[in-house]
Amino acid sequence: MPAVTPKILPAAASATNPSLMIGELLEAGVRMAGDNQIVYRDQRRHDYRQFQARVHQLAHALTLQGVKAGDVVAVLDWDSHRYLECFFAIPMIGAVLHTVNIRLAPEQILYTMAHAEDAFVIVHEDFVPLLEPLADELTQVRGYLLCQETPQPLETSLPLVGEFEHLLGQQPTHYDFPSFDENAVATLFYTTGTTGNPKGVFFTHRQLVLHTMAEASTFQAPGFELLNRDKVYMPITPMFHVHAWGVPYTATLLGATQVYPGRYEPDMLIKLLVSENVDFSHCVPTLLNMVVSADAIASQQVDLSGWKVLVGGSALTESLARKAWGLGIDTRSAYGMSETCPLLTAGILPGDVTQADIETQLPWRCKAGLPIPFVKLQVADTNGQALPHDGHSVGEVRVQAPWLTQAYYKEEARSAELWREGWLHTGDVGSIDEHGFLAISDRIKDVIKTGGEWLSSLELESYISQCPGIAEVAVIGVSDDKWGERPAALVVPTDLNHPPTSDAVKAFLAQFVEQGKLNRWAIPEVVRFVDEIPKTSVGKLDKKRIRSDI
Amino acid sequence: MPAVTPKILPAAASATNPSLMIGELLEAGVRMAGDNQIVYRDQRRHDYRQFQARVHQLAHALTLQGVKAGDVVAVLDWDSHRYLECFFAIPMIGAVLHTVNIRLAPEQILYTMAHAEDAFVIVHEDFVPLLEPLADELTQVRGYLLCQETPQPLETSLPLVGEFEHLLGQQPTHYDFPSFDENAVATLFYTTGTTGNPKGVFFTHRQLVLHTMAEASTFQAPGFELLNRDKVYMPITPMFHVHAWGVPYTATLLGATQVYPGRYEPDMLIKLLVSENVDFSHCVPTLLNMVVSADAIASQQVDLSGWKVLVGGSALTESLARKAWGLGIDTRSAYGMSETCPLLTAGILPGDVTQADIETQLPWRCKAGLPIPFVKLQVADTNGQALPHDGHSVGEVRVQAPWLTQAYYKEEARSAELWREGWLHTGDVGSIDEHGFLAISDRIKDVIKTGGEWLSSLELESYISQCPGIAEVAVIGVSDDKWGERPAALVVPTDLNHPPTSDAVKAFLAQFVEQGKLNRWAIPEVVRFVDEIPKTSVGKLDKKRIRSDI
Repeated sequence: MPAVTPKILPAAASATNPSLMIGELLEAGVRMAGDNQIVYRDQRRHDYRQFQARVHQLAHALTLQGVKAGDVVAVLDWDSHRYLECFFAIPMIGAVLHTVNIRLAPEQILYTMAHAEDAFVIVHEDFVPLLEPLADELTQVRGYLLCQETPQPLETSLPLVGEFEHLLGQQPTHYDFPSFDENAVATLFYTTGTTGNPKGVFFTHRQLVLHTMAEASTFQAPGFELLNRDKVYMPITPMFHVHAWGVPYTATLLGATQVYPGRYEPDMLIKLLVSENVDFSHCVPTLLNMVVSADAIASQQVDLSGWKVLVGGSALTESLARKAWGLGIDTRSAYGMSETCPLLTAGILPGDVTQADIETQLPWRCKAGLPIPFVKLQVADTNGQALPHDGHSVGEVRVQAPWLTQAYYKEEARSAELWREGWLHTGDVGSIDEHGFLAISDRIKDVIKTGGEWLSSLELESYISQCPGIAEVAVIGVSDDKWGERPAALVVPTDLNHPPTSDAVKAFLAQFVEQGKLNRWAIPEVVRFVDEIPKTSVGKLDKKRIRSDI
Repeated sequence: MPAVTPKILPAAASATNPSLMIGELLEAGVRMAGDNQIVYRDQRRHDYRQFQARVHQLAHALTLQGVKAGDVVAVLDWDSHRYLECFFAIPMIGAVLHTVNIRLAPEQILYTMAHAEDAFVIVHEDFVPLLEPLADELTQVRGYLLCQETPQPLETSLPLVGEFEHLLGQQPTHYDFPSFDENAVATLFYTTGTTGNPKGVFFTHRQLVLHTMAEASTFQAPGFELLNRDKVYMPITPMFHVHAWGVPYTATLLGATQVYPGRYEPDMLIKLLVSENVDFSHCVPTLLNMVVSADAIASQQVDLSGWKVLVGGSALTESLARKAWGLGIDTRSAYGMSETCPLLTAGILPGDVTQADIETQLPWRCKAGLPIPFVKLQVADTNGQALPHDGHSVGEVRVQAPWLTQAYYKEEARSAELWREGWLHTGDVGSIDEHGFLAISDRIKDVIKTGGEWLSSLELESYISQCPGIAEVAVIGVSDDKWGERPAALVVPTDLNHPPTSDAVKAFLAQFVEQGKLNRWAIPEVVRFVDEIPKTSVGKLDKKRIRSDI
């Protein structure tokens, strides 16, 4: 395609052309719903006007501590009103918010904080013991600000500069926020892969604003209607995990009531869902399963009907979606990853499907969904050729969008690997149907290459999970001299004392072979029964550790 | 405020950071609602997939005619599916869409087309007679493409290159659209002031995309719910007038069914409103008044209940809003101007007001409304100081937003005047209340300065309009040796043969003086009865001509 020369016209010397700044999202939310509430557990609530005043106060407090534009500020906290304030105040003064993944091993946390060059740390008292042994090596940190909720004085070797609430309370409620280049980095965090050190991804003001606008448009679509100023939102995805999918920014723009549950405890989550009449949450399937399996919910002592849950991180299964539906819970899927801010697709069903019965809808609800505005998405074959939208051609998912991390922080080789041929390679394998609907079938590294064919470990897991007596399953490929790889399954029985036999599982799978749904060579040789399947810090199957267990 | 140095990080060499391009809006709409319809009068309908294919065909047709990036392409058409296709295809090849105001006088149309340096013209057959005498002077035009709806051959001296439908039909349905600088100009059109030549305003891909995203977020707000894929949209604001408020772009993004009524004829408008079940339109008060006063509507033979109408251009009056409400029509206000793309504020009511009865709501529905996301809006005194949000401090409205024309095209002095001190000066006078709600009281040049006080001509018009026997009124200031200016009123009586007397009108106003609503010196000396009040090409009171009439 030849380069084009469109018309660019000069601006008046005195004209203003505003940058896209995160602060505008907050301004819009306060105008839309100044009286709406921000709630923290059963401990605190204040309205949007106070939320805004506290963001200004936090900016003053940070400035007073010497934090300036370009500095990286680490936050270690549970999901809270404070964290929401950090989402705004830190980028709005031109600093970078580093959302530390507090579920990583201490040595990984140390690695990420040193690699990010954190200059200042905001830390909840629960994580002080974690940081104390690391502080000596975090030589670039100039100060630690404590978030304390317990009344008694805290004894610590950390060089604290003060307490969050105390410091905020002393500050003026108006800060004159600067405007600057919209391509300035606003947020930074780390994602763990199967090999090597965690990788830093970063997002600019422009990227977060555009992601928020596209997410807002999607979340207000008919049938979805997840967020607006009449809705109550509570994340059950940690705020350190891809900005809780960016939803706190979107909820703020639209003026939704926001509930932050602190540390995730099933009783507190359920209490808040009920007492605050939460309309919308998002989480990984494991967490949704935990909630719907809780005694109070399963026995229907507690009514969660009307609750809408967007599920991502790993695939929503039809059985979980059906179980939720039985409780009146409306689930949909979303798809994205740390590198993509994260939202790429959402389960906005085709118009005719929304009219169908729930059993027709379930498969649609479990697919990744439709690309949201501005997302260009392909499935491509091993030569990088885009495959047709026919619902069965399977290839690697690759994307372009105005909010994808432009590199891994200080990792040139891995950045080049991520961004081959101008496309961000997700490492996921899937297909796109004629509606443009994406279905993910596997991680490319979890596809089992056996006898020259690709076998989806996810598909095999889905069949095995239907076998009576099986609670959870993970399938991986193990190397095999003859076939290249062969599938192997790790299985958790529902009754640990009376697991089904390995042969019973294989016999169960044989019916799918007879039905033509599965190839005979897809039946795993090895079926191993275990008490528990290893998970990553965000609740996904940890196939790296599973491989070492088999 | 000191300049700040935030962190800017390098991208991977192969990373893609997409520009904000108008074409993405169309892509998103087709994904969201491929089966939804685009309707043209009672003559034609096709779905979004065909709409997309036709945009690609139009791009091919234009390219074939030698139109290239940077060229300005003029369109003279009624509101149509063709115009919608031009909204996309012309900017998407990097050319500039010039939406010609066909209601201007021929010499003004000539001025704008020459000033814009139009290189190619798309013209509906109805406007061929208008262009024929101008063509000799439009020396830069390389070709004219005819839009013909009548079957008989057209005889014309215009050098036609072909017919729109015929040429489109011969083109392939896929065009490989380029990506380019998002600051490239996409649209250009002219606005007429009270003095001098029409002024050209222009908008870039970036500006239109951001305006669309903010409009989409606003139009989906609860209680507003104007547009989504389940809604049917029909503009009653011409597409040459500030891109029909940008709504065709927003409707396309969200996948709404779109109905284009062609030339505005009351019978056709009402027919389409009913047969297509139109949910949402926007127009000036004059047009809404024309519709609700039509015989079929007023007599309730035709039911328009459920129709939502956004009113702008000039102020919605409570009496018109009440009359519409009585017919089940839900009206709200919006505010903006040609220079602002246009949307700045919209009548999203405060939460408690939405619960109130209609009489409580009416004053809110007639105010300009709440700034939409990314709009910074002030009312400022004559020294440029922002006034408090107290609901009564009145000053000039000035704005900043990421979608304001950055200049008047090739007009340096007028551009500097528009953009004083980094703010776009709207020339409107108003106040902002504690909710952030804007109310416009007048044009700054229509404020009557009498005895050192400011008197709002709009306010006075509102009082006079309540006088029995009066159909329409316009108030202006006439110079006065003693007082500087004095108000004068031009009045159209409901019964031309039996107008009220001038003294009756003054006596009627005296009651508002007694009630403390009006100052005694606000009662006009001159009240003149006329058959008709001069209007501008877009239906607003033409105070320039009114002044010459008094």
